Amino acid sequence: MPIALETFFLDPAFEGTLQQQIQQMVAGGILSGRFRPGEKLPSSRKLATHLGVSRITVTLAYNELMADDYLSSAGRSGYFVSENAPEPPQLSPRSSSDTVDWTRAIGNRFSGNLQIEKPLDWRKYKYPFIYGQVDPSLFDRQNWRLCAVRALGQRDFDSLTADQVDRDDPQLLEFIARNTLPRRGILAKPEEILITVGAQNALWLAAQVLLTQRRTAAHENPCYPGLRSILHQSRCHRIEIPVDGDGLPPNLVPPETDVVFTTPSHQCPTASTMPISRRKELLRRASEDDFLIVEDDYEFEMSFLKPPSPALKSLDDDGRVIYVGSFSKSLFPGLRLGYLVGPEPFIREARALRSAVLRHPPGHMQRTAAYFLSLGHYDALVRRLRNAFHDRRRIMDSAFAEYGLTVAGAGAFGGSSYWMRAPDGVDTKELGDRLRHRSVLIEPGAAFCESTSREYKHYRLAYSSIGAAQITPGVALIAAEIEQMLR
Amino acid sequence: MPIALETFFLDPAFEGTLQQQIQQMVAGGILSGRFRPGEKLPSSRKLATHLGVSRITVTLAYNELMADDYLSSAGRSGYFVSENAPEPPQLSPRSSSDTVDWTRAIGNRFSGNLQIEKPLDWRKYKYPFIYGQVDPSLFDRQNWRLCAVRALGQRDFDSLTADQVDRDDPQLLEFIARNTLPRRGILAKPEEILITVGAQNALWLAAQVLLTQRRTAAHENPCYPGLRSILHQSRCHRIEIPVDGDGLPPNLVPPETDVVFTTPSHQCPTASTMPISRRKELLRRASEDDFLIVEDDYEFEMSFLKPPSPALKSLDDDGRVIYVGSFSKSLFPGLRLGYLVGPEPFIREARALRSAVLRHPPGHMQRTAAYFLSLGHYDALVRRLRNAFHDRRRIMDSAFAEYGLTVAGAGAFGGSSYWMRAPDGVDTKELGDRLRHRSVLIEPGAAFCESTSREYKHYRLAYSSIGAAQITPGVALIAAEIEQMLR
Repeated sequence: MPIALETFFLDPAFEGTLQQQIQQMVAGGILSGRFRPGEKLPSSRKLATHLGVSRITVTLAYNELMADDYLSSAGRSGYFVSENAPEPPQLSPRSSSDTVDWTRAIGNRFSGNLQIEKPLDWRKYKYPFIYGQVDPSLFDRQNWRLCAVRALGQRDFDSLTADQVDRDDPQLLEFIARNTLPRRGILAKPEEILITVGAQNALWLAAQVLLTQRRTAAHENPCYPGLRSILHQSRCHRIEIPVDGDGLPPNLVPPETDVVFTTPSHQCPTASTMPISRRKELLRRASEDDFLIVEDDYEFEMSFLKPPSPALKSLDDDGRVIYVGSFSKSLFPGLRLGYLVGPEPFIREARALRSAVLRHPPGHMQRTAAYFLSLGHYDALVRRLRNAFHDRRRIMDSAFAEYGLTVAGAGAFGGSSYWMRAPDGVDTKELGDRLRHRSVLIEPGAAFCESTSREYKHYRLAYSSIGAAQITPGVALIAAEIEQMLR
Repeated sequence: MPIALETFFLDPAFEGTLQQQIQQMVAGGILSGRFRPGEKLPSSRKLATHLGVSRITVTLAYNELMADDYLSSAGRSGYFVSENAPEPPQLSPRSSSDTVDWTRAIGNRFSGNLQIEKPLDWRKYKYPFIYGQVDPSLFDRQNWRLCAVRALGQRDFDSLTADQVDRDDPQLLEFIARNTLPRRGILAKPEEILITVGAQNALWLAAQVLLTQRRTAAHENPCYPGLRSILHQSRCHRIEIPVDGDGLPPNLVPPETDVVFTTPSHQCPTASTMPISRRKELLRRASEDDFLIVEDDYEFEMSFLKPPSPALKSLDDDGRVIYVGSFSKSLFPGLRLGYLVGPEPFIREARALRSAVLRHPPGHMQRTAAYFLSLGHYDALVRRLRNAFHDRRRIMDSAFAEYGLTVAGAGAFGGSSYWMRAPDGVDTKELGDRLRHRSVLIEPGAAFCESTSREYKHYRLAYSSIGAAQITPGVALIAAEIEQMLR
């Protein structure tokens, strides 16, 4: 790639000749690693015009640089960074952080929250029992690509490239309102739906709109680790409610609660499902004590054992439930598309906040998803995922029986993971570390729990990314490692 | 489109027969507008299996619905919503907001900030002198599409679909570090760069990390309206500094300032450029009074009159400058891709915040941009835009001379807009409203200013979206309207 002309500036404060300054710019670029061996420099004529200097000045500078072996010339085809040019030292940023006290300069600190350790190179592991990554062998790449190309066609181009200020793609909104939400028993107008950059973004917007330092949020324990960072960031008062085999127990929600965050259809990470009676009880409590509920309905599509129960929001006559949906689990997480459903006054504030934070999720992603959904590819994909997950689950079940692993939560409707319990004396953090060396990835339970009450005994095993053939040997390795740790 | 099976649930609490319940579900779907005339219902066999009832129950329910003209049957091809089915009433959401006091329930209010009135249907106007929208006749749709398809190819698919947790696309980072930033005189390591969902998102992240209720931000007046919402939301103490023909005057920055927000290369909206001497003075003040600077370097690519001066960040030896860049102006705003450059401790916090808010901008958009940039299409596009804008600017200049409009700020390097002054007695808000009726769009100055000190006299005229042929008649209409208002 040729080195761009715009890289070069004259500094009016430079002390020395123009030729020296040009030499220094080029040598500086090479020494700092910006210009690399073999890259072509602008012609002397072009650089001279660009800098407003005479061509001979540039030629003289280039010749000096050739003599020093910074540059080489290939006759008429121009000047190149020499293959023998001095090597750049380890890149040291020009801006040293020494003069600014960043400990003081940073007003709000966001780093340092516990996250699930999710190695980005999980594909290199033979037995990846990890959650929430797409299985490339199941995804319908061909049709997704066709939809993406269609969304970039002449007809759609104008609407997708424009700054939509705070609006979403009407086609995607229409599909969600008319097809996705009715399957969960929810009726919503487009003004009650907001498209978000993934479910994480939806939960964040809800927390920001509803919570303040003086308000109280109750959430499940264990829970999705991203939710903890979000609530921590909102600075609200936070209450953890231990879940049981039926999910969140409504009677444990304290009366002073302002907002409850829950995953009724498929508790994260224990995989339990909240029965209808408990859902009604939770709504009754909400009405009685005047609190709101944020329902994260992730993964409802993965119900292959029996049909999913209707969403909590479908039972909500008061408009107390804010619903969070996502396409990341069944499409792919890198897509970053989710949605919020709630009463108009709430959606209005969430939209205004989204507008200040990022305006709107990219138009092209919204339209591609709208096509993929409305052409029926999404339903076909979900069916394929369900079948594959159903098969894998059967293999998981028999492997657990064969190798004697204990399931703590299995999910009555299906899903894509199990919540497991290790025997007493086995720290699952250590188990996870040891298994990594054997090319097995599991998710230790500690990441889902408060640092003060870590869940050392539990771990999650997902079957959404691991191939059917890897399951039994992978489970065998887990069992063998546990046995070794017990010795 | 057939109506999905999953739309149907049995309610254990329903009082009545199963057949009645099925009838009610179907009729309810039609009456609420979810099922529309001509849509196909699931076969009686499939619905019976799904609900776990006998097939005859479903058939009887369907027959009753046919008798009432909710459904029609096309013999063996199944049941459809009848064209004569009762019309749905105006959609009324199930969740009435009456039982929840949303004035109280909403903890933080974000709506109601003044924004530029940017009609989304601007393409319908004959003379759209508006800013920041893409001109479809100049954009290289064909190559963008090829890059998008390539980014969805087998080879890239894995990395783009995966949840990257908080990481960005290494190819895009590499290109920005090695090619884009050096053109602005900036040297940065990948760890000092964060990809954002547009420049708006970059400014928001910077404000959230650096500001608190106890800190003071100084910003230009007039300024980009999105910045005001961002600072308002951070709840910091806010100081407005009036700009002059050379941009922000450093001597007006109060010593208690913690962060200065500025647009030195092309002040928004007055189009002035800060001279090198003033940039150095601003940096000296920053060092002396220990404040930070957020530099919004939007539109530097549009320098066609003379080369752009180096970014403020390129003169920054202390690491006090946080740099905001964007591809939205030269690619298209719906892309939503920008970036932040700053010292590592700052980028670390911005990354952690971004991760909680939205994880990362969609992988596919990042890779598509990386290809478009590295294959040289971006530079070609920028050249094309510069040439077109240069032509349009010449036409603007002669039209202003011909019709006697007064330019208040023109931008020494080029850009894509003028800051205009209307004669005394002309309120530009009213001027804008009147011109709309004549199919002319202008941007009244009030949107860029504090509500307490509205800038009634100024307005912005951009030439990034208006075709060359429309410019002179459009300017003539503006002049005619102004004359009429003066009468």
